[in-house]
Amino acid sequence: MYDCIIVGTGPAGLSAALNMKMFRKDYIWFGTKSLSSKVTKAEKIANYPGLPFVSGKELFEAFDGHREAAGLEITEKTVTNIMANAGTFMVLADNEIYESRSVILCMGVMTAKLLEGEENLLGRGLSYCATCDGMFYKGKNIAVICNDPKYEHEVEYLADLANEVYYIPTFAESRVDKENVTLIKGVPVSVNGQMKVESLTLKSGEELKVDGVFALRNAIAPSKLMPGLDVEEGHIVVNRSCETNIPGCFAAGDCTGRPYQYTKSVGEGNIAAHSCVAYLASLDKN
Amino acid sequence: MYDCIIVGTGPAGLSAALNMKMFRKDYIWFGTKSLSSKVTKAEKIANYPGLPFVSGKELFEAFDGHREAAGLEITEKTVTNIMANAGTFMVLADNEIYESRSVILCMGVMTAKLLEGEENLLGRGLSYCATCDGMFYKGKNIAVICNDPKYEHEVEYLADLANEVYYIPTFAESRVDKENVTLIKGVPVSVNGQMKVESLTLKSGEELKVDGVFALRNAIAPSKLMPGLDVEEGHIVVNRSCETNIPGCFAAGDCTGRPYQYTKSVGEGNIAAHSCVAYLASLDKN
Repeated sequence: MYDCIIVGTGPAGLSAALNMKMFRKDYIWFGTKSLSSKVTKAEKIANYPGLPFVSGKELFEAFDGHREAAGLEITEKTVTNIMANAGTFMVLADNEIYESRSVILCMGVMTAKLLEGEENLLGRGLSYCATCDGMFYKGKNIAVICNDPKYEHEVEYLADLANEVYYIPTFAESRVDKENVTLIKGVPVSVNGQMKVESLTLKSGEELKVDGVFALRNAIAPSKLMPGLDVEEGHIVVNRSCETNIPGCFAAGDCTGRPYQYTKSVGEGNIAAHSCVAYLASLDKN
Repeated sequence: MYDCIIVGTGPAGLSAALNMKMFRKDYIWFGTKSLSSKVTKAEKIANYPGLPFVSGKELFEAFDGHREAAGLEITEKTVTNIMANAGTFMVLADNEIYESRSVILCMGVMTAKLLEGEENLLGRGLSYCATCDGMFYKGKNIAVICNDPKYEHEVEYLADLANEVYYIPTFAESRVDKENVTLIKGVPVSVNGQMKVESLTLKSGEELKVDGVFALRNAIAPSKLMPGLDVEEGHIVVNRSCETNIPGCFAAGDCTGRPYQYTKSVGEGNIAAHSCVAYLASLDKN
């Protein structure tokens, strides 16, 4: 049982992790080691106080250098589900269960629009996690939507299992090169099926007959991640202390709303960690 | 008429100013060039993301270097009063009036306790501003309480005007050396008088007969600064967008409450500036 699980390795997650470490809490931090791809893509950041006019790459290096200097370890797993149950959080990361007394959600904001039919078919042929659900599609035909090159190894993993893969990256340069992968240039608009996924429709009208659809995005809709979490217009509802409606669950960064700014995110990561430490102290008193 | 007046040059003020500059707003920024003395006093800061394990001095240098690189000018005046009037803010800084369409308050938190009698006698012999009110005490006897060495030049300014000065610094090393200044080691507890200040009482019981008391502190109680501003337990009440109860008035940093953290402060400065820019845009539309 951890004191805290931090989900997401962007600026908010880093800020939260720095503080949990400082307070000597027993935490685990899930996300990718590339921190946030949004950070590295930024051209010039003028308003992160103390680091004048850094490029996204330089800010990433400063963040990652700090992470390393502070001895913070990232566990590279994708969190796909969190259940709150009587003061304990069960966190599903790459199909393993981790238990914690609290969670801090810093998973960024999902800029991609949900597909039509996505909410209905999630868990019925539509999946966010290649390593979690890939095995179910051995020898089958699937479509894979991917909005970040960092997930291309997952596309390859799926290709090794599946029969045929229709691969739809939302970025220009794809490095996936496998015989059974067909690169599709198009915009997916709906996932179709009654009880389970039967096809994926593109904006062009083309319909791909598939048994499953994987949507590998660099953020997961919070309402999908954690049942019962208050969400408004795609953002997690928090108060000034970064508390969500679920006791012991805190949120920080882009996932709590605008402005989408590094400075705002690190500030909230700091607040969420302090609130979390106070929450843990209150549990210990009882 | 400025678009915005930023009060305070700590981390929150810097963050707000960086953004107002970025958005090309016509703003003026009041405070001391030493930014925040609290910053420079800090020994080691482990949790400011991107600057691992900096000393307070190093963080100050990073902040000040950023300020300079961004071409942000500080106007070294002390804001002692703000009046909101029909969408316009009248800001009194060293006895001069500045007008603005919005204000961002980043003046830190007053850690010093108010003296007994302070609220009643403010403006009746008790003053927060040497350059504003010093002239009224020409040839008179005064007491000066000072909690930051950076205000010692104001103590000297007062000594040049007054007859006798009882000087009560709350720090160890005083550099004030004037014939008519008596250094008092003691803790002031109450300022006394019916219609105006008559004396200052120390914890020891000693009573100093004076015509005026100056309290030179590195923060001013927000309730004193701006009539009508919602304040709770010494902190300005703001929502998640750093809006106060007064339209066009925003607040960020320690003055809005705990945690008192650099990272939290820069985050709020960023949010306050973004909210302020949106507010100015809404005015322009009408």
